[in-house]
Amino acid sequence: MSASPLRVGIIGVGMMGADHADRLVHRTAGAELVAVSDPDAARAAALAARFAGVRTVGDPLELIADKDVDAVLIASPGFAHEEQVLACVEHGKYTLCEKPLTMDSESSLHVVEAERNKAGRPLIQVGFMRRFDPEYARMKRLLDSGDFGRILLVHNTHRNKTVPETFRSEMIVSDSLVHEVDVCRWLFDDEIATITVLAPKPTGRAADGLLDPQVAIFQMAGGGMATTEVFVNCQVGYEVRCEAVAELGNVTVGLGQDVFVRSDDHYGGHIPDDFRDRFARAYDLEVQAWVDASRRGEVVGPTTWDGYAATAVCTAGLQSLATGRPVPVDLADRAEILRGAAT
Amino acid sequence: MSASPLRVGIIGVGMMGADHADRLVHRTAGAELVAVSDPDAARAAALAARFAGVRTVGDPLELIADKDVDAVLIASPGFAHEEQVLACVEHGKYTLCEKPLTMDSESSLHVVEAERNKAGRPLIQVGFMRRFDPEYARMKRLLDSGDFGRILLVHNTHRNKTVPETFRSEMIVSDSLVHEVDVCRWLFDDEIATITVLAPKPTGRAADGLLDPQVAIFQMAGGGMATTEVFVNCQVGYEVRCEAVAELGNVTVGLGQDVFVRSDDHYGGHIPDDFRDRFARAYDLEVQAWVDASRRGEVVGPTTWDGYAATAVCTAGLQSLATGRPVPVDLADRAEILRGAAT
Amino acid sequence: MSASPLRVGIIGVGMMGADHADRLVHRTAGAELVAVSDPDAARAAALAARFAGVRTVGDPLELIADKDVDAVLIASPGFAHEEQVLACVEHGKYTLCEKPLTMDSESSLHVVEAERNKAGRPLIQVGFMRRFDPEYARMKRLLDSGDFGRILLVHNTHRNKTVPETFRSEMIVSDSLVHEVDVCRWLFDDEIATITVLAPKPTGRAADGLLDPQVAIFQMAGGGMATTEVFVNCQVGYEVRCEAVAELGNVTVGLGQDVFVRSDDHYGGHIPDDFRDRFARAYDLEVQAWVDASRRGEVVGPTTWDGYAATAVCTAGLQSLATGRPVPVDLADRAEILRGAAT
Amino acid sequence: MSASPLRVGIIGVGMMGADHADRLVHRTAGAELVAVSDPDAARAAALAARFAGVRTVGDPLELIADKDVDAVLIASPGFAHEEQVLACVEHGKYTLCEKPLTMDSESSLHVVEAERNKAGRPLIQVGFMRRFDPEYARMKRLLDSGDFGRILLVHNTHRNKTVPETFRSEMIVSDSLVHEVDVCRWLFDDEIATITVLAPKPTGRAADGLLDPQVAIFQMAGGGMATTEVFVNCQVGYEVRCEAVAELGNVTVGLGQDVFVRSDDHYGGHIPDDFRDRFARAYDLEVQAWVDASRRGEVVGPTTWDGYAATAVCTAGLQSLATGRPVPVDLADRAEILRGAAT
Repeated sequence: MSASPLRVGIIGVGMMGADHADRLVHRTAGAELVAVSDPDAARAAALAARFAGVRTVGDPLELIADKDVDAVLIASPGFAHEEQVLACVEHGKYTLCEKPLTMDSESSLHVVEAERNKAGRPLIQVGFMRRFDPEYARMKRLLDSGDFGRILLVHNTHRNKTVPETFRSEMIVSDSLVHEVDVCRWLFDDEIATITVLAPKPTGRAADGLLDPQVAIFQMAGGGMATTEVFVNCQVGYEVRCEAVAELGNVTVGLGQDVFVRSDDHYGGHIPDDFRDRFARAYDLEVQAWVDASRRGEVVGPTTWDGYAATAVCTAGLQSLATGRPVPVDLADRAEILRGAAT
Repeated sequence: MSASPLRVGIIGVGMMGADHADRLVHRTAGAELVAVSDPDAARAAALAARFAGVRTVGDPLELIADKDVDAVLIASPGFAHEEQVLACVEHGKYTLCEKPLTMDSESSLHVVEAERNKAGRPLIQVGFMRRFDPEYARMKRLLDSGDFGRILLVHNTHRNKTVPETFRSEMIVSDSLVHEVDVCRWLFDDEIATITVLAPKPTGRAADGLLDPQVAIFQMAGGGMATTEVFVNCQVGYEVRCEAVAELGNVTVGLGQDVFVRSDDHYGGHIPDDFRDRFARAYDLEVQAWVDASRRGEVVGPTTWDGYAATAVCTAGLQSLATGRPVPVDLADRAEILRGAAT
Repeated sequence: MSASPLRVGIIGVGMMGADHADRLVHRTAGAELVAVSDPDAARAAALAARFAGVRTVGDPLELIADKDVDAVLIASPGFAHEEQVLACVEHGKYTLCEKPLTMDSESSLHVVEAERNKAGRPLIQVGFMRRFDPEYARMKRLLDSGDFGRILLVHNTHRNKTVPETFRSEMIVSDSLVHEVDVCRWLFDDEIATITVLAPKPTGRAADGLLDPQVAIFQMAGGGMATTEVFVNCQVGYEVRCEAVAELGNVTVGLGQDVFVRSDDHYGGHIPDDFRDRFARAYDLEVQAWVDASRRGEVVGPTTWDGYAATAVCTAGLQSLATGRPVPVDLADRAEILRGAAT
Repeated sequence: MSASPLRVGIIGVGMMGADHADRLVHRTAGAELVAVSDPDAARAAALAARFAGVRTVGDPLELIADKDVDAVLIASPGFAHEEQVLACVEHGKYTLCEKPLTMDSESSLHVVEAERNKAGRPLIQVGFMRRFDPEYARMKRLLDSGDFGRILLVHNTHRNKTVPETFRSEMIVSDSLVHEVDVCRWLFDDEIATITVLAPKPTGRAADGLLDPQVAIFQMAGGGMATTEVFVNCQVGYEVRCEAVAELGNVTVGLGQDVFVRSDDHYGGHIPDDFRDRFARAYDLEVQAWVDASRRGEVVGPTTWDGYAATAVCTAGLQSLATGRPVPVDLADRAEILRGAAT
């Protein structure tokens, strides 16, 4: 591992980017936040002012190219990712790119190929932070231990207390369900072959026209299956649960029982509203793992392929949401792309 | 309520019938077991010998017709139900009929119509005992209270540790899933319009050719939805859970946490193998409610219509299992049948 | 077992007696409620009128002597127990006596001796219903199985939402803690040698002068120990928990998690206020067991010795509450009394 | 906050010291491990070799005096603490001292006075890490919110799977119970006035002569009370639970339910053996808080007074363990010491 700290630049300092800045400075070992870039120059300046020694850079591509920036954390809006990630590949910068990798399958595949063919080695980690959540990680280890036999089914629950009025039915697939897409691909270690997205009669608590909740069914290439409820106006809090059912037993995460209270005729505990509370540790561990790996010259966690596959599944999911029918996922041949990289 | 105890005859004294005999004699107020009938005369005699004052009757129809039998509990195999239930209707006997009501939709509908047209009043309670389980009953009361808004989704889990080699894929629908069919109709207070039964790649722990686990999706006439996992060789124990998701919150039953043990590096509790353990209270309360209602001259709990609808849904479910596609449920017009009874 | 039902008379039809009347008539097999007696004749008549064939008897001793009464359930106030129980012994009637057996150790010992010497055989079951609670019973079986080694410690929690203003500090010992006295004697299968009752600074939610909560420490004759919190104005609900710690593990009952709800930013469940809800099953099973045993000519459950020992421990407990110091329990020599019975 | 990282030296690189070294280097922001000292020079060298830029220093006092060491983490055996902490005070170094502060009350009080009189400002944080555990911290916040009224009782459970043969009865008080001493002082925000330590008949699984388990009772100066079970050979795992009972409700931590597994006839989860697993987050947050505060020129968390008070309570506890009687805690007058510092 490099003896000196990793010099990190952040692109995009909205909610997530600012959160990551705090994380890098206050809770991450071996990292130094050196530069930030945001189209909103005032916002960038305000953030930089909160820390010692952080520059603002107007042009994100300039930040990426900067020789004093070792690694780049991309927290800009999704539509800006493609250009920025490709620039990172070009400059050989280790990159943590918030999901989605890009806005559509084609451009995501382009990134996969660029990384393979131009960089010739992995550089990009995609921000599916759940893989770093201690509970999810423990579940994965238990399933991989072989003690439970083959994994057969996964049941996911993904609920938000409420969402803004601007949240559209499609975003339930592309912004919410995308996490379960990655979780299931990871747990099964397999691709999703077919996706069905069904919409029951919506809750009266959602904005008019929002298909909320939705129920998705994944059929894995190897025969496994997953069911997922996404309900973004559940009125209760942020609840993410996952039960993996294997041949010899089942494992559940997200029950969220820590501090236990008895008061006012009931027992139980608090369900926080904010996903950043629920996944605070996951984000911390994700960023620490990224910093550590970058200093070792490695990449860990979700790859560009994972980012591409998630986008491809969600694309099919949107089609299914529109028709109510199962839609096969159109995925490039991974082996072929890997061969491409070698040539 | 009648001052004298209800004189009950049991038809069929296999596992369930013998269990009910014990229940009637040892744990039920206001009932007197007076007669039993079973094709296996020795089995009937052995059971009768265990209690004072219980006769054996060779012909079940004779038991039904017997003037000293006030009410009949039918625990014979499903194929015998139609004839026996129709005889009960003819003789105006209060009847608790174990599920299924009959083997197919047509004959079940026949029973519905016979009860309406010949008896002119309800006589038959169908043995969907979960409605009497204290947890399910409390969930139903909570949902009906209005405090949770409209019910949107139900998620069921139905697992057996193992099943005998003779258990076939179709029985997962008609013997196991049928309980969730009734539960969902009852919780939603609505009919199932479409059923889909999907089979992921089976567990290696099931007999060759058994499609186990299965995943069913119900679409309710009113727009609600339900997902159900049935897994009859889950290797762990008998687990029946149900989560009902409503507009303002959700309710789960079947978590089964009573006696809590810490030993050998883990905390938790025991999962019993036997459904009769899990639903012991439900059966007791079901039979007590049946006895009490019969003595009052009433019928409570699942009706012949519920029995018929469950059969109709399972018939569609078997078609779906064969094709992997959604199958609409072909249900008679209830209003029309009710009119029929009035004429 | 007797073929005919047990004809039961109830003495005292206040809250508990009326509850037991309902239980006998509506939820108990093999019993027939035939007579009730209460100083409040109108209350007795009103209760009798609710059921068919129930007589009222003015004098409780007459009810006890009645040849058409096979067994007596005593639910009168504690001060009336001594005379009534002794009458039951004299007439050889099977008796279920609500706790306390009598008001002081001396009279309780008198009952023990009368049963041994006059009746020459057990007749009395004392109403410590927790031994029949399914969770407590399962805990007892687990501990007795030997799988956990020797039992070392017990920790009890006993809370009521509120109590009436008339509830005095001493009643926390004699009415509430007395249940844990019996539970610990039963779980350890041992006598309590020393009791300490401590009173921290009281809650502001109790009546002036009420020492609430209290903490009791039992030292068992064989070296075991128990701690108990009794808190009768805890403001939450009725909570009774018990953790038994043994050499190889520990067992907890009373966590009370059945129907699980997520709503309003929290998860959890309801804690009922009424001890009759929490121990509804225990009471049902207690009375059924008493009826069954009486019909077989046997006595099960807590004996007069258990009733006497509980009273003796509480007497010492009251002394300790007054002084804050450990008080040894002054218990008669059981072996000697048993010898007395034989001569 | 200082712009440059805090340069930390560690004294003692046994189990805890080595753990803290890893923590500082790999999981702590704003810190730089620069030096380690250990009587076992080879052990110090081996540890230093694992990280870039870490020197070994033979004499711990030299490390403390070193101008290139900003702050000192003392993880040496307890008997060495007094001299080392006093040296830190003399050199004005921010110090995180593992518990115990020193080996007896007198020397601990000496440290309190030295810090007040020589340094004239706080420098020392004592390593009661539970205050940084997220669950304990949340419990404290809930209790301090006022929503629960005044805190009345605390019940603690502190269990280890096993301890080495060398673990003596006194260590259950001074090494284990000391954590509950600090927790109760912190939760009640009050001093312990009297301590009683009782020893039931020991488990057969402990070494001969070890009084295990033990039960301690704290009576707080303000009238609160606490009960604590310490059981260091409980055979199950490391279990630390705490229930705080207040006027309007109660709060429990340490139920430890995260990943939930159903397998082999039971449901539940794993209980880890190692306290470093259970309190991994607490240690991380403790050290991060110490680094952050040091860089700001502040001290947070348990103070030398807390360290002294804990030692004084344990001293009384050992007397009580020997006699079985309540022992008042002999505590210096805090106000007087604070005045001393000002003069």
